[in-house]
Amino acid sequence: MRPVAVIGIGKTAFGAFPDRDLRSLAAEAIEHALTDAGISAPAVESFYLGNFAGPSFVGQNHLAPYIGTAVGFESIPCTRIENACASSGSAFFHAWQSVAAGLYDTVVVAGVEKMTSQSTPRVTEILAGAGDMSGEGRAGATFPALFAMIARRHMHQYGTTREQLAAVAVKNHANGAKNPLAHMRKVITVDQALGGKPIAEPLTVYDCSLISDGAAAVVLVPLHKASRYNSRFARVLSVAQTSDHVALDTKADITEFPAVKSAGQKAYETAGVGPGEIDVAEVHDCFTIAEIVASEDLGFANKGEGGPFAAAGCTAINGRIPINTSGGLKSKGHPVGATGVGQICDIVMQLRGDAGERQVSRHRTGLAQNLGGSGATCVVSILGAA
Amino acid sequence: MRPVAVIGIGKTAFGAFPDRDLRSLAAEAIEHALTDAGISAPAVESFYLGNFAGPSFVGQNHLAPYIGTAVGFESIPCTRIENACASSGSAFFHAWQSVAAGLYDTVVVAGVEKMTSQSTPRVTEILAGAGDMSGEGRAGATFPALFAMIARRHMHQYGTTREQLAAVAVKNHANGAKNPLAHMRKVITVDQALGGKPIAEPLTVYDCSLISDGAAAVVLVPLHKASRYNSRFARVLSVAQTSDHVALDTKADITEFPAVKSAGQKAYETAGVGPGEIDVAEVHDCFTIAEIVASEDLGFANKGEGGPFAAAGCTAINGRIPINTSGGLKSKGHPVGATGVGQICDIVMQLRGDAGERQVSRHRTGLAQNLGGSGATCVVSILGAA
Repeated sequence: MRPVAVIGIGKTAFGAFPDRDLRSLAAEAIEHALTDAGISAPAVESFYLGNFAGPSFVGQNHLAPYIGTAVGFESIPCTRIENACASSGSAFFHAWQSVAAGLYDTVVVAGVEKMTSQSTPRVTEILAGAGDMSGEGRAGATFPALFAMIARRHMHQYGTTREQLAAVAVKNHANGAKNPLAHMRKVITVDQALGGKPIAEPLTVYDCSLISDGAAAVVLVPLHKASRYNSRFARVLSVAQTSDHVALDTKADITEFPAVKSAGQKAYETAGVGPGEIDVAEVHDCFTIAEIVASEDLGFANKGEGGPFAAAGCTAINGRIPINTSGGLKSKGHPVGATGVGQICDIVMQLRGDAGERQVSRHRTGLAQNLGGSGATCVVSILGAA
Repeated sequence: MRPVAVIGIGKTAFGAFPDRDLRSLAAEAIEHALTDAGISAPAVESFYLGNFAGPSFVGQNHLAPYIGTAVGFESIPCTRIENACASSGSAFFHAWQSVAAGLYDTVVVAGVEKMTSQSTPRVTEILAGAGDMSGEGRAGATFPALFAMIARRHMHQYGTTREQLAAVAVKNHANGAKNPLAHMRKVITVDQALGGKPIAEPLTVYDCSLISDGAAAVVLVPLHKASRYNSRFARVLSVAQTSDHVALDTKADITEFPAVKSAGQKAYETAGVGPGEIDVAEVHDCFTIAEIVASEDLGFANKGEGGPFAAAGCTAINGRIPINTSGGLKSKGHPVGATGVGQICDIVMQLRGDAGERQVSRHRTGLAQNLGGSGATCVVSILGAA
């Protein structure tokens, strides 16, 4: 396994774009990434695309060559990977593996989703397909319901409060308000978060991530070639993908995700760093409770203490471990298939020192955690500054 | 890159199984493959699943961990790959790469589709998502229509006849009738094929592959470890995946597929063999014309002569190059996501000498060609006997 670098990143804004189709969003992100890297499309040897539900959202399948040929990838392997909300994290894992193993020298990995052309009930139904439709889906347990159960149980076991959930929302909205590419650039107060429309109690609308359109892309090369392209590259220290049962009721303890813990452990081990050495993290806050659970499963907070940890400001931009400086899925938006690679772009911006108002002071090492469903897939990536 | 072997194969019957769900079909195939290999689920290090449209056909997404955990894969990377009708061929390509590159020693790759729970018009609509929905799809050009245009053009340019198309159907039905796992075990005559219900002229119902449920799986290990498991293994000589534009109207000449030609060339080059050295082939006969075009693009017949080549019996079991001894997609069935890995299983059976009544006499080297859409993805795999 040879070291790998991210030499280019590209993102569209995340938001509701009724006039944009899925292909044009993906193409925009890829073209930004190629330009940022300083390479042209014919130099790319393999293309990985993360997409969760293009066929259901917009009726288009076979998306990898559909998008790849639009940006000028000719004859190379173009492969779509689906792993629910971790689709493009998983695509990043496979792309990284392929460069690390010496199969290719130049690989593009992108993620895209176009969700806002469907009604919210239909989006909720499509998203439910990331859970077990034969059990929880059939019973009407949509994802807000599943994560509401997780929140209730976390409250019951550890005394986590609605105010602590709200603290996550308030922080992520504050960060997203400073992110020019975020979907909802709106500062909120704890009272607003607590008083939001109930979605699945105890979760209000402010505990839930957004339904968004958007795309993100990165370019990978072996580390020893990175400086030939630019000096803005980031080193990929490790990427780990793990899995678990899809149905929530198969888990012994729903206040933690074994797939997140094992992906985190593997990623830390390979990178040779521990949670205390992570300077900045993007975690998968599909719901505020998911950020709290992730902060525990990844070892930033002790088990059961993720709520007070967030409420005390430990995860703020100037906190002990800044989490979701991009605004997270909560405020930046959650175009499902784009989220994993979007997190990588956000971490690389921080490592480069390019995050503007949201820049963290120490930025040598960053972590991205991308979750699929209620914990059946997890990808954890650790990156380092050049 | 180290040599790789297939040490286990498993297939369900292909057919219409109203009482079986997608997960149980996939699990059955995987369990057969593990038993055939002589290994247990916990030994598997990575799982690749090819599936085209589970979310659209049965409402279930996030299929890789959903199926992987059902057979006992715990915590390993479980990854779904979608590349239209080449989904599991593509999954096989990535699985092979991962073993060849030394990333893993034991990998399972499966393919599955459950199609018959939807009406034929809805199946046709879902399948259209493998083409360009913004153009050909919007114009109503379903896949039978697209391949009818290819057939018309081939007839116009090369004098191919309806009788030659019918010869492909007759041969594949004759083969499938002898395959206990085939969907439609029914011998037909040229007159029956010609007199079939028109679907998209000049294609009749006998020119079109079947709408099926089914699954297939294989187990891959590095070649140097293969004999530890059993003596029935097959060597993977090469796998090549290429891509092209999705929309048929972007192609300069619709009587050939550049992705098939380039995947074939790469696969031959890596394997160090030419078309004349292939003893048996499974090609992607989603329509009879597709088998004729594939036989040309892969170099078995000269350009434009695929029709007479088939009609002369050159592709029969006792012919110069036996094609689709399994019955092909035409008679064996075409559960889309299962087709690519199913072809690998069929070739391995021939290389082992286990194909019973359908066994070809010379069986040292076999080829499988899996096509996505109207040629936007192609995977060509070449395998050799132990």
